[in-house]
Amino acid sequence: MPKKNAFYAQSGGVTAVINASACGVIEASRQHPDAIATLYAGKNGIIGALTEELIDTSTMSDEQVGMLKHTPAGAFGSCRYKLKSLEENQREYDRLLEVFTAHDIGYFFYNGGGDSQDTAHKVMQLSQRHNYPLTCIGIPKTIDNDLMHTDNCPGFGSVAKYVAIATLEASMDVASMAASSTKVFILEVMGRHAGWIAAAGGLAQRDGHTAPHIILFPERVLNRQKLLDKVKETVNTCGYCVIVASEGIKNADGSFLAASGGKDAFGHTQLGGAAPSLARMIHEALGYKYHWAVADYLQRSARHIASGTDVDQAYALGKFAVEHAIARHNGVMMTLERESQTPYLWRVGTTPLENVANIEKQLPDSFISDDGMHITPACREYMLPLIQGETPPPYVDGLPQYLVMNFDLVPKKTAPFDL
Amino acid sequence: MPKKNAFYAQSGGVTAVINASACGVIEASRQHPDAIATLYAGKNGIIGALTEELIDTSTMSDEQVGMLKHTPAGAFGSCRYKLKSLEENQREYDRLLEVFTAHDIGYFFYNGGGDSQDTAHKVMQLSQRHNYPLTCIGIPKTIDNDLMHTDNCPGFGSVAKYVAIATLEASMDVASMAASSTKVFILEVMGRHAGWIAAAGGLAQRDGHTAPHIILFPERVLNRQKLLDKVKETVNTCGYCVIVASEGIKNADGSFLAASGGKDAFGHTQLGGAAPSLARMIHEALGYKYHWAVADYLQRSARHIASGTDVDQAYALGKFAVEHAIARHNGVMMTLERESQTPYLWRVGTTPLENVANIEKQLPDSFISDDGMHITPACREYMLPLIQGETPPPYVDGLPQYLVMNFDLVPKKTAPFDL
Repeated sequence: MPKKNAFYAQSGGVTAVINASACGVIEASRQHPDAIATLYAGKNGIIGALTEELIDTSTMSDEQVGMLKHTPAGAFGSCRYKLKSLEENQREYDRLLEVFTAHDIGYFFYNGGGDSQDTAHKVMQLSQRHNYPLTCIGIPKTIDNDLMHTDNCPGFGSVAKYVAIATLEASMDVASMAASSTKVFILEVMGRHAGWIAAAGGLAQRDGHTAPHIILFPERVLNRQKLLDKVKETVNTCGYCVIVASEGIKNADGSFLAASGGKDAFGHTQLGGAAPSLARMIHEALGYKYHWAVADYLQRSARHIASGTDVDQAYALGKFAVEHAIARHNGVMMTLERESQTPYLWRVGTTPLENVANIEKQLPDSFISDDGMHITPACREYMLPLIQGETPPPYVDGLPQYLVMNFDLVPKKTAPFDL
Repeated sequence: MPKKNAFYAQSGGVTAVINASACGVIEASRQHPDAIATLYAGKNGIIGALTEELIDTSTMSDEQVGMLKHTPAGAFGSCRYKLKSLEENQREYDRLLEVFTAHDIGYFFYNGGGDSQDTAHKVMQLSQRHNYPLTCIGIPKTIDNDLMHTDNCPGFGSVAKYVAIATLEASMDVASMAASSTKVFILEVMGRHAGWIAAAGGLAQRDGHTAPHIILFPERVLNRQKLLDKVKETVNTCGYCVIVASEGIKNADGSFLAASGGKDAFGHTQLGGAAPSLARMIHEALGYKYHWAVADYLQRSARHIASGTDVDQAYALGKFAVEHAIARHNGVMMTLERESQTPYLWRVGTTPLENVANIEKQLPDSFISDDGMHITPACREYMLPLIQGETPPPYVDGLPQYLVMNFDLVPKKTAPFDL
């Protein structure tokens, strides 16, 4: 089989471990020089393919590639850019084929969430329609853990560990102060439509009644009176109340509690501010002194406390994506399968791209307690293996030593293209 | 000299390392059974002395005491409770003497910030006025780093390390996304009247022009147009703009940008929400997509990433407080002195309590850049030694193993007292 070049890109919101997948892709590619000549990374995801802004990963030393494994965010740049259907935007697809042809791309690795798997699926359809030989593999990535047909998503284990630790530590702070100061603390975490991340806060509760006392999921409509009753009861019995709230919690009319009005490039409402809204509501009704935190990007970039399991899985998915591509397994997304719960054993699998594109997996009912405000033992059993292990980055001068590179772009071979 | 019992309590907002000071006090006390019979900890700070809620620290095993060194927040409970002057509230002072007499207390260790050193000073004045033999020692503690006559305050190094790392990691996230998504990110940090914590965000900037691009201090009035100009220029040149903002930034009329209206027990305005206010202002003027985070208690409880230097210093101050007390150095607060910058060498000293009570040390002008929106090399030189070293806690099942105890209280010897 003739050697081909490969294209790899990162897409959607980045994570603490997406670069570990990149590390896996690059290291595996280097082990197959007979199949993959040059691995190009797209600058800023699929945008880099459209604008022909390509990074030659062979310019990276082995040491630099290795550093990707402990570097958060997207080393090559990510994007929020969704390709329209083939019918709606023929121009962009023609352009992709033009750039792939110009650079002899035979492998397409796209590392992202549900929207990005949709992009990978469309690129596969495109190549088939035009008889352009291209092996398309999706590599999952999303802190939201909301992809179907994979036991979990790389990126989630690390944000879960971060949220569990932050909840544990802040709860101890509140417990110290509650006698004469703060009685209610609210931590707002990400999760627009699925409560996986909020649920992870529940892992900080060790014996069924310590903090966090309440978890609010987007899967359950906010019942203000029920919430206020539980906050009051908790403060009366425990002295304080810690709440982990998803950014996506909704009012009875379906509106977000914290809609800020803006929309992102995918048309999703941009959220933020559920915690201050809840805090004000509780303060007005019950008078308690409160504090709130919004973790936002801190939670998904916190490589310093990433889950060892998550790093291992992200790396393995990148590595096996290359192995599967070379074996011509086209049009699949790499998945994680749970082989055994105790001990926790996992392996890499695949699922057709069309299975995962544009479908969000919510937290199952069996993971949410009957009162709708906490997790169940089944949820804890599912999540605990995903936050195991610590793999801190190296530190220099008190700060993590992350890889930061200014990449030169590969000389262009085609005419400019306007997005 | 006859053996006496000792009283130790934690006061004010807790930190990631105040328990390391407690560890130092307890371990040193155990080494001097000839001088200190029993070390009692006040439950919830000075409140525990007033209500005679005392914890007998001799019930703790050596292993439990050792665990304090890696446990955040206040193991014995803290308080926000300020004693009035001796003239204004004779009743409380009479009560303190009653409890101290009942439990044969000869040593008073108070571990807190400026307000707490004031409490320690008043207790010393009280004992002298009544000829009650009491050795009073203040042990500094404040993430705000705003105490006079000490080079730095235990608790600050760890929050500085947290804020620097959070700024670094979130900045890499924004850099990855900026081409097609978030252009402006704002991290709000603590610091009501002093910008020490916000300044620590500046340590994430390695070569004079990377993120964070802007730091907003309470020491400088917010100039909206100057800020907007710098944000726009930064986005134009770097592609994105990261801002670290103190919760205490003020408008031209002296009001807090984010006053939420409430006040704490010390009469301080309760803040929160500078970041969303700034984000909306920037979005309305410049249209950029934004994200913001409010770290709140996460920053001061993050023992998982505490500074090794900070832990060492907090422990040493507790230990030497006992040594000084036994040597009858009465009425002093323990201090940290910088003996040498390169290499960084420090030692423990003392200063009279009256020097530090109720005075806040702001960030010096020489630490703020000419445009008022960043730190100077002098500030970096001062702060870098304070964030050195990592001393992670032990982990069990993916989470830090912190000490959590339910202490029995010592049987009461006096009549009940209403606060």
